[in-house]
Amino acid sequence: MVEPQLPRYADLPKADGGARSGWHLFGADDQVGLMNLQTPERIAAAAALVHSGEVYPLGATLGQPDPPLFGRGAPRRTQLEPRESWYFDDVHDNLFPQAGSQWDALGHIGFREGEFYNGATADDIRGGRRNTIEHWARRGIVGRGILLDLQATAPEAYDPASSKAFSVDDLERARIAAGVEYQPGDIVMLRTGFLEHNVTSDVASRKSQSVRTTLKAPGIEHTEEMAEYVWNTHASAFVGDNPTVEVWPPDERPEAWPFGYLHYMLIGQFGLGLGELWWLKDLADACTADGRHEFFVSSAPTDAPGAVGSMANAIAIR
Amino acid sequence: MVEPQLPRYADLPKADGGARSGWHLFGADDQVGLMNLQTPERIAAAAALVHSGEVYPLGATLGQPDPPLFGRGAPRRTQLEPRESWYFDDVHDNLFPQAGSQWDALGHIGFREGEFYNGATADDIRGGRRNTIEHWARRGIVGRGILLDLQATAPEAYDPASSKAFSVDDLERARIAAGVEYQPGDIVMLRTGFLEHNVTSDVASRKSQSVRTTLKAPGIEHTEEMAEYVWNTHASAFVGDNPTVEVWPPDERPEAWPFGYLHYMLIGQFGLGLGELWWLKDLADACTADGRHEFFVSSAPTDAPGAVGSMANAIAIR
Amino acid sequence: MVEPQLPRYADLPKADGGARSGWHLFGADDQVGLMNLQTPERIAAAAALVHSGEVYPLGATLGQPDPPLFGRGAPRRTQLEPRESWYFDDVHDNLFPQAGSQWDALGHIGFREGEFYNGATADDIRGGRRNTIEHWARRGIVGRGILLDLQATAPEAYDPASSKAFSVDDLERARIAAGVEYQPGDIVMLRTGFLEHNVTSDVASRKSQSVRTTLKAPGIEHTEEMAEYVWNTHASAFVGDNPTVEVWPPDERPEAWPFGYLHYMLIGQFGLGLGELWWLKDLADACTADGRHEFFVSSAPTDAPGAVGSMANAIAIR
Amino acid sequence: MVEPQLPRYADLPKADGGARSGWHLFGADDQVGLMNLQTPERIAAAAALVHSGEVYPLGATLGQPDPPLFGRGAPRRTQLEPRESWYFDDVHDNLFPQAGSQWDALGHIGFREGEFYNGATADDIRGGRRNTIEHWARRGIVGRGILLDLQATAPEAYDPASSKAFSVDDLERARIAAGVEYQPGDIVMLRTGFLEHNVTSDVASRKSQSVRTTLKAPGIEHTEEMAEYVWNTHASAFVGDNPTVEVWPPDERPEAWPFGYLHYMLIGQFGLGLGELWWLKDLADACTADGRHEFFVSSAPTDAPGAVGSMANAIAIR
Repeated sequence: MVEPQLPRYADLPKADGGARSGWHLFGADDQVGLMNLQTPERIAAAAALVHSGEVYPLGATLGQPDPPLFGRGAPRRTQLEPRESWYFDDVHDNLFPQAGSQWDALGHIGFREGEFYNGATADDIRGGRRNTIEHWARRGIVGRGILLDLQATAPEAYDPASSKAFSVDDLERARIAAGVEYQPGDIVMLRTGFLEHNVTSDVASRKSQSVRTTLKAPGIEHTEEMAEYVWNTHASAFVGDNPTVEVWPPDERPEAWPFGYLHYMLIGQFGLGLGELWWLKDLADACTADGRHEFFVSSAPTDAPGAVGSMANAIAIR
Repeated sequence: MVEPQLPRYADLPKADGGARSGWHLFGADDQVGLMNLQTPERIAAAAALVHSGEVYPLGATLGQPDPPLFGRGAPRRTQLEPRESWYFDDVHDNLFPQAGSQWDALGHIGFREGEFYNGATADDIRGGRRNTIEHWARRGIVGRGILLDLQATAPEAYDPASSKAFSVDDLERARIAAGVEYQPGDIVMLRTGFLEHNVTSDVASRKSQSVRTTLKAPGIEHTEEMAEYVWNTHASAFVGDNPTVEVWPPDERPEAWPFGYLHYMLIGQFGLGLGELWWLKDLADACTADGRHEFFVSSAPTDAPGAVGSMANAIAIR
Repeated sequence: MVEPQLPRYADLPKADGGARSGWHLFGADDQVGLMNLQTPERIAAAAALVHSGEVYPLGATLGQPDPPLFGRGAPRRTQLEPRESWYFDDVHDNLFPQAGSQWDALGHIGFREGEFYNGATADDIRGGRRNTIEHWARRGIVGRGILLDLQATAPEAYDPASSKAFSVDDLERARIAAGVEYQPGDIVMLRTGFLEHNVTSDVASRKSQSVRTTLKAPGIEHTEEMAEYVWNTHASAFVGDNPTVEVWPPDERPEAWPFGYLHYMLIGQFGLGLGELWWLKDLADACTADGRHEFFVSSAPTDAPGAVGSMANAIAIR
Repeated sequence: MVEPQLPRYADLPKADGGARSGWHLFGADDQVGLMNLQTPERIAAAAALVHSGEVYPLGATLGQPDPPLFGRGAPRRTQLEPRESWYFDDVHDNLFPQAGSQWDALGHIGFREGEFYNGATADDIRGGRRNTIEHWARRGIVGRGILLDLQATAPEAYDPASSKAFSVDDLERARIAAGVEYQPGDIVMLRTGFLEHNVTSDVASRKSQSVRTTLKAPGIEHTEEMAEYVWNTHASAFVGDNPTVEVWPPDERPEAWPFGYLHYMLIGQFGLGLGELWWLKDLADACTADGRHEFFVSSAPTDAPGAVGSMANAIAIR
């Protein structure tokens, strides 16, 4: 497929709720969305960003956050000693791929109930017919990453366990501080400080964060202005060290739809990759140390047919 | 740590059973083995091998081979529809990370019963104190990959479901055909044709392959000459599209130890990364098509503390 | 429902394959089959069989046979120490209720592919709409048990790991030795010696038994004569200490249908409860010791909606 | 072992915290506690209580309460269609035996941290060496049940989702209304109305009940007077349709120990069987209807070596 010239948000067709629609730009049958922008040319160019050869795994230790958020379960690993021989083996149970550092597939959530990216239905997702993770897994997620350190560039310090909402200005400030311009297909990483704060908090705090109704987390504001900004970057993915990239809690009142919970737009209309709860601390510190905020990113989602997400399995290389 | 000048096999200290020992070359406490050779300089050089920007995920679809080999279980995924909202979620049970495309950690198997790489004990592995996968996960596995197409360069066609043993000469023939020289830290990939044959076989054949005593698979021969050759490449990892890199079945008679089952040497003495059951077909075909057999490889093992293996989560980029 | 006067086998309507049909005797919508014969009157009478107050749990230890038969998995239990307090808790994974002492529900297998007891379809079972275990669970399985010791009364000793087929004469001999007459609603228990042999065998033998194609087990012969005999007992359930009550292997050739694998008739046409792999040794020894071969039986299958079997959860009281 | 003449509470040896100790009455190595009182004589006598032959399974449907209480997980069942043939099979994951109708084993919780019934240590429980469920499973739990309908006999109606504490007078009132005297070895069942209320509540209420800190449930008061009363019944088990038999929340302040959370005494000192979240509604209604409040009870806990609890697997027969 020849890549289309992506329109600006203001030029996208209108959708319900005052929104704009990113559907069908890559064809009626497309199910990888903005990942289409990760073209071989851009990937090759991104590889050229590797200078020092430093490697930053971006996945938190399995089992973090502990307890998991949103009622997901904690993984159980059993070590086996098969009797055929004297080696060790493992088996994982209760492994929620989206309980830790993760990708939301385009089937994870839609524009509204029953209506998913590019017009897929809930039964399409249940049946694994559209928008599920294997389509990303089979192409890999590879490209240029840029890191915007929202925490370091915030005008005032904030509590990383609060509902701090970052505005377009905040993102622009961080981008300018990083010295980068957006390029189509980028994997944009936002450091808010949430995860590093969570893993160093006491049990009571972590338990409070694990509950949907008491969780508070910084993230991008849920406004149409922010949706427009995100689209106009023409990124393939936005990634945060926070639970949902956007500020938590969302505004789930019907009258706030579809911008009150930006997932509806980002995943359901834009087909944007969202990476959540990634471990960005070490990478961000390295970016700060030498001022290079762009790098190469490689992620291999699990090729689990019909699944709506995956562990991140991601690495940045500078 | 300054990288040591690695000796040739013949210059390694002697170990029991007529073997040579790779222990302690990276320090008495080392638990990542030859992955130490993946230095920033080599990683940066490997990134420069990306030319066309083609991406090759190297993990087979979750659930393949089906049934799994060696009595491992088949993964179960349950799709959830949490009642808090109308999104989808997944949970995996019975997920054996080593049932499909995988890494063996250095705690997976030892030089002999109770004696693991660098002197770790069985209790060290049980307790997750040494040699387990998180130590690789936290540095990532990144470097130069080279592909040796043993199937395409074999002088005579063979049955990819047979116990075809590849000799040093076979590997050299494939290497020369690939036009590559070994470099320290390489991730050496061997295509034997096993996995692509397995996934296209009928149920009866796959069931037969799933049983340890009836499985036959091509791979490198289990001889000291082969052990010596592998060591002298100074690779960080050997990866196959077959169950154990080496030919199956091994020779597990006591008098054949430690070369009859080369895992004892490769993992237990050398600290070599072994990748098994990787999906190499598409990558190999691409290498054949344009003659470029070296490329960039990135893998993010799961940071599961105490685990003895991981899904491969690997990608090659050319 | 008033209990029907059950016909003799020879008076049942004809079914395909030369068989007789037990369908619809308890109504077109019935899904508990011959368990209907466990009436309050019979249960009360059975309770009067308790004399000495000895209790015999009839479930083998969880995890036996080890390995499980027919490719079922071994259970995994994880002990948890919740951080809320200092108590212990458990969670079971990979728990196949039919891997050990068990009940086959009427949805477990049918008369033929797609045709289950009383005319249920495969989709009825998949959807949990008919014949699944909760219907037995919600009435309990309670009644008079009688034990026929086929092993002790066999004219010649046999290998309990062989395909010894018991004839109608063999059952009659055991029944007469037990000094009992069949009564409607009985839970008839057959001791063959299989399970006690399995759990005391070496690993190699148990592994061989675990594989469907190498398993051999004594049990009732698969003939129409045996089907007729079983029906004419008007028992509610037949229970064995062997894998399938009937001799293993079955004769699965199309021309042997439906008597070659007696499950087709016993479950699919008769709606008979089949209990398998029960621990009958201690009970049988007690029966032999004092000559009382009838007793009270109580079982509480798990009320798991849609499931096709359950752990036995059964006790005999004498 | 000859059954000891059990002392009254006031004559038990003193224990720390002003408590009395039930340890060692059945020997220093005993690990079944008051279940020892279920003697053959009493079991035979209990069987004579069966008159009408009505059967009451006492386990709630698997998956209830939904969500489970105390952070336990919801069970997952996968229906399998093995390819060897066309039958159905099941496997359960994430099955917490104590999430629904259940038994607490004597290893579930102790008198205080690290000190369990009869002097077992936490490591004894972790290692499955003492007090775990298989010891009850291998003798079965069988005897005379009596039902005290605390809800029906309460002087004033109460909210079954409130922390209504029942006093000794309340229990005596219910006992007298039931027309029964306690007998050694009894299984005393207390109907509070909690579970039937839970399963008919809306999702929001059930979610609130599922959280330890917001759960409220009626039950016996946590006082020494109540402990004394319970002991003096010389029952083998107390069973409730509520989460912990006693009122929830407990008083976990150190100064309230060991009576503030009566489990410490009932399990840790007395070795009493506690059954929780049993489905008592239908049984209680039947008792009310004809005034017979004593009956026969049979339960077959799962013989899971090392486990600290079991599904109830219990049936009452009247």
